[in-house]
Amino acid sequence: MPELLSSIRGGADVRDLPAGELPRLAGELRARILQTVSRTGGHLASSLGTVELTIALHRVFLTPEDKLVWDVGHQAYAHKLLTGRGELFQKLRTMGGCAPFQSRAESPEYDPIGGGHAGTAISAALGIEAAAKRQGKNTRAVAIVGDGSLACGVSLEGLNNIDENRSSLVIVLNDNRMSISRNVGGLTHYLNRIISGKGYSRFRALAKTMLRKVPDLYHAVRRFEESAKSVFLPGGWFEELGIRYFGPVDGHNIPELERMLTAARESHRPTLVHVITRKGNGYPPAEKEPERYHGVGPFDLERGLENSSGGGFSAAFGETMIHLGEKYPEIVGVTAAMALGTGLEKFAERFPDRFFDVGIAEEHEMVFASGLAAGGLHPVAAIYATFLQRALDEVYHDICLQNLPVVLAVDRAGVVEDGPTHHGIYDLAFLRSLPNLDIYTPADEQELRDALFAAVASKKPAAVRYPRGASGQGFDPLLPVMPLIPGKALIRREGAELALWSCGAELHTALKAAEILEKEYGISAAVVHSFTVKPFDGKLFMEYAARMPVFTLEDHVVTGGLGGAAAEYAVPAYCFGWPSDKVIPFGKVRELREKFGLTPEKIAAKAAEIVKQVNGRIP
Amino acid sequence: MPELLSSIRGGADVRDLPAGELPRLAGELRARILQTVSRTGGHLASSLGTVELTIALHRVFLTPEDKLVWDVGHQAYAHKLLTGRGELFQKLRTMGGCAPFQSRAESPEYDPIGGGHAGTAISAALGIEAAAKRQGKNTRAVAIVGDGSLACGVSLEGLNNIDENRSSLVIVLNDNRMSISRNVGGLTHYLNRIISGKGYSRFRALAKTMLRKVPDLYHAVRRFEESAKSVFLPGGWFEELGIRYFGPVDGHNIPELERMLTAARESHRPTLVHVITRKGNGYPPAEKEPERYHGVGPFDLERGLENSSGGGFSAAFGETMIHLGEKYPEIVGVTAAMALGTGLEKFAERFPDRFFDVGIAEEHEMVFASGLAAGGLHPVAAIYATFLQRALDEVYHDICLQNLPVVLAVDRAGVVEDGPTHHGIYDLAFLRSLPNLDIYTPADEQELRDALFAAVASKKPAAVRYPRGASGQGFDPLLPVMPLIPGKALIRREGAELALWSCGAELHTALKAAEILEKEYGISAAVVHSFTVKPFDGKLFMEYAARMPVFTLEDHVVTGGLGGAAAEYAVPAYCFGWPSDKVIPFGKVRELREKFGLTPEKIAAKAAEIVKQVNGRIP
Repeated sequence: MPELLSSIRGGADVRDLPAGELPRLAGELRARILQTVSRTGGHLASSLGTVELTIALHRVFLTPEDKLVWDVGHQAYAHKLLTGRGELFQKLRTMGGCAPFQSRAESPEYDPIGGGHAGTAISAALGIEAAAKRQGKNTRAVAIVGDGSLACGVSLEGLNNIDENRSSLVIVLNDNRMSISRNVGGLTHYLNRIISGKGYSRFRALAKTMLRKVPDLYHAVRRFEESAKSVFLPGGWFEELGIRYFGPVDGHNIPELERMLTAARESHRPTLVHVITRKGNGYPPAEKEPERYHGVGPFDLERGLENSSGGGFSAAFGETMIHLGEKYPEIVGVTAAMALGTGLEKFAERFPDRFFDVGIAEEHEMVFASGLAAGGLHPVAAIYATFLQRALDEVYHDICLQNLPVVLAVDRAGVVEDGPTHHGIYDLAFLRSLPNLDIYTPADEQELRDALFAAVASKKPAAVRYPRGASGQGFDPLLPVMPLIPGKALIRREGAELALWSCGAELHTALKAAEILEKEYGISAAVVHSFTVKPFDGKLFMEYAARMPVFTLEDHVVTGGLGGAAAEYAVPAYCFGWPSDKVIPFGKVRELREKFGLTPEKIAAKAAEIVKQVNGRIP
Repeated sequence: MPELLSSIRGGADVRDLPAGELPRLAGELRARILQTVSRTGGHLASSLGTVELTIALHRVFLTPEDKLVWDVGHQAYAHKLLTGRGELFQKLRTMGGCAPFQSRAESPEYDPIGGGHAGTAISAALGIEAAAKRQGKNTRAVAIVGDGSLACGVSLEGLNNIDENRSSLVIVLNDNRMSISRNVGGLTHYLNRIISGKGYSRFRALAKTMLRKVPDLYHAVRRFEESAKSVFLPGGWFEELGIRYFGPVDGHNIPELERMLTAARESHRPTLVHVITRKGNGYPPAEKEPERYHGVGPFDLERGLENSSGGGFSAAFGETMIHLGEKYPEIVGVTAAMALGTGLEKFAERFPDRFFDVGIAEEHEMVFASGLAAGGLHPVAAIYATFLQRALDEVYHDICLQNLPVVLAVDRAGVVEDGPTHHGIYDLAFLRSLPNLDIYTPADEQELRDALFAAVASKKPAAVRYPRGASGQGFDPLLPVMPLIPGKALIRREGAELALWSCGAELHTALKAAEILEKEYGISAAVVHSFTVKPFDGKLFMEYAARMPVFTLEDHVVTGGLGGAAAEYAVPAYCFGWPSDKVIPFGKVRELREKFGLTPEKIAAKAAEIVKQVNGRIP
């Protein structure tokens, strides 16, 4: 039998298939996803879960005129395979190959907007819909959102911004019950009650309580309940926001999905279709352990995933957290749905009542941590560098300004293999300007432990930044903690002709480069390591800069990070501006300018003084 | 009659007062707030609205053991006056005086955490509660949240994170119907229906539809409805999240408030008390125009606020938006509850169907704007610099990475008179590292227009940054738009001995300083103006730096902004890191390092090459 998939080049081809062929198409999609992902690595469990849903969406909506916006595009592999990207998909997650998320560059018509961070689909789809309306187009917009993503701030802001009188947005809630297994959040409990019918039980319990006072109504009300149940009970939470609720529906039953999506499409009002899918559907190992099969490296399809060795920075972080927890009763751990990835899972097992997983809610994570600290505890909030971008304001406003002892454990800092949306290479640029915050950049797992102990001992707001994976230097939890000092850089190799000044695990890149310089170029290179980027050891930097050319090296963009810190320190650039190591207090702007030397008079006086010095020195 | 207020030093004193004295206390508080704010300026309307609520909270909760967390602390003036800060309050909003928000520095026991940005109270209170529980304390935490703040992402994340089985948080929803007047958001409509009884009407409409099929039940059900109404209808949305709903209650009736808050306190479950207050209560001009009396400067109590002259950057922005709107049909305006403050109100009046106010939801604002752009429009999103911090990730992930034409109009950039939470002095540090984004820093209102036209013409992601107030240079909308070029700095004054290199309105500070240098110090100073900070005119900078000392000047912290850009350009610091003007694509880390010259081998080769050049030049 010829492959169906190879004849499908877009939505119209999917719609042209006879319904009887659809199960075969689903099978082919699933096989293709398994073949490719087991070879290249990728997001497996979510992709397998949305195969039938994707087919149904392309049959009901007139893609590409209608726009599908997949929240965290890693659910969208089947969508890519159905929209002319079969060949490209062979090169999933490779340089110049296929992105694992939706991508405007790959297909502007089928991927109107890209996205790898959770929660943006509803807002983006609302924008697309409003733009179409403004231009008199009939485009329908569909946002496909996972249950975990639905609870994050930007999703909820989007939900709240749906105009029940003007929008006809269709939201597909892809409820794969991942969050449910973790029991995070009121909304999750609510969805759980819908699925299990407990929402209805709750309604009945309320009705009964009430009826104790009016028992004669009991039987009438029972019949009323039966009718009421299907009409307004399950989706009341959404209905109150002006969003029609349809569901729940089996996400692996294509005719049922088509029926429900058609009803949503034809309602011409904002509608949420609650679809229940099974992560990893069709591949038993992934069905059994969907979390392990969420994002995978290459693996053998027959044998399934090997047990990974663990190790590396995240593992060292996890072990250190247990040490810290044992030593300091005020230490607590907080994460935003990254317990496994950050290594905090171990701490959670050891100290279940000192661990908080807040779900995909980075803003809440930071403010909640500041509240814990205000209440006398010492929270360590584990987060990936790329997701910390979601909480910049809270790091500034709720942690730094309050000067509360919160440690940010910033994992996955640096370039990663998940692509542009996930590179953690902007954090130093925004953290380095915030007052009261120290930034630690340990070089290896051992130093990560030193940094965490130093950060906790400082009782200050602190960020400890480290990359994904392992430094290759190993980790021995039995070695003593080294009392390293914030603001003091460490000379790791002596040299006479140039210096490589690194931070974080780039120390090891620098050491290798220094060896090459010596062996292949006959150049003697020093290597210095910034254990903290803030405070920056400007004194030592200037000593080196006076003697030899100094090169900075960081796993971060070249602007605003270590190179920026060094440049700002090194150049007599005479920068006038507000100090970044102090909180600028209340006051009239004129008063503040006086205090901080930013009036024209003070600027003139200072500039004149420096110019005279310079002129004195260089006659 | 002696003043009651002067004898109140904290919560216990409020609780000791006989109930009959409370209206007098409320009157005194209101008088004190009016006296002080009319003299110093401050947040008037919200403060007047919470006088009775504040008294009731201190009577029902055992402050300071119980903790009150006021969301956006500007509701908290009465709280300050009741907690030993009567004298300090005289110096409201002055340097070294009283902060307009809650402040740990002023009173760690009564102000457990400060805050001037909306939406953080629930998360912070949850943290305080969890910390107390962990330490075996009986502390109760109360979050007082406005209806506008409740709908912002971090609030909703907080709501969703309330554990119905473990928390006994009390949320006071201070519903002053401000947002309601603007009709933003499903949640607002929901609250509106509760207040007006329409939630119930909706329920009845549903019941009737249903009953067409079973008419015999009609009368029984009518009676059932009557009983059901009070039990589960009004607060169902919160109840579904596991939060008990009490209300609505008149926020100016102290006995009623005490009764409701006591019930909430004693329920020992998470509870939301829905309190209806009137902004500006007790001062008729503020009751009539609460928005105008939200934040005020000094004014005459008898005459009320004078009509402000308007003018300045925001007004010029508003006018320019109309010109842009007339010229380009694809231009639309977006704001997050800042239409009045940013000057976008005029655009909204002129083009009501091309204007979107999304409420206090900056993350949604940015993603929605990116969706509008993906749909073919050209949105201009107006926002204050300090609130842009809320949306850094969306600016990166949804605008810059997608390379969509969205213009950010970044108002209130620089130090402002609302204090540390509101200074807009960190934006350049985080924006400057983002790929695809241009950053315009016009010097005056006329140049703001040039910048907006240039940003729109570029069809790129762009931020246009300008301070609060006026440059003093005036604005003539009839003058032609100047075709200024991004990346080309403008020499505004010739000089031979030093150069002042400014951005934004600091050009005028620099020009004044240059005059002083000439007159008082006999030094000839050049002045150069960065019309864009990104791209930065490094070429011209180096030309000046080769000839004379150059000083940078910016209304921003000294790190990461203009000074940082200049320093990075000027120093031969030889920074190794990822380029910040490019998107770093997918790939194996090793491949990416090869491509961008960050392997040890490439670093060594490059360093060797530079050192040889340097050694060649300086023998």
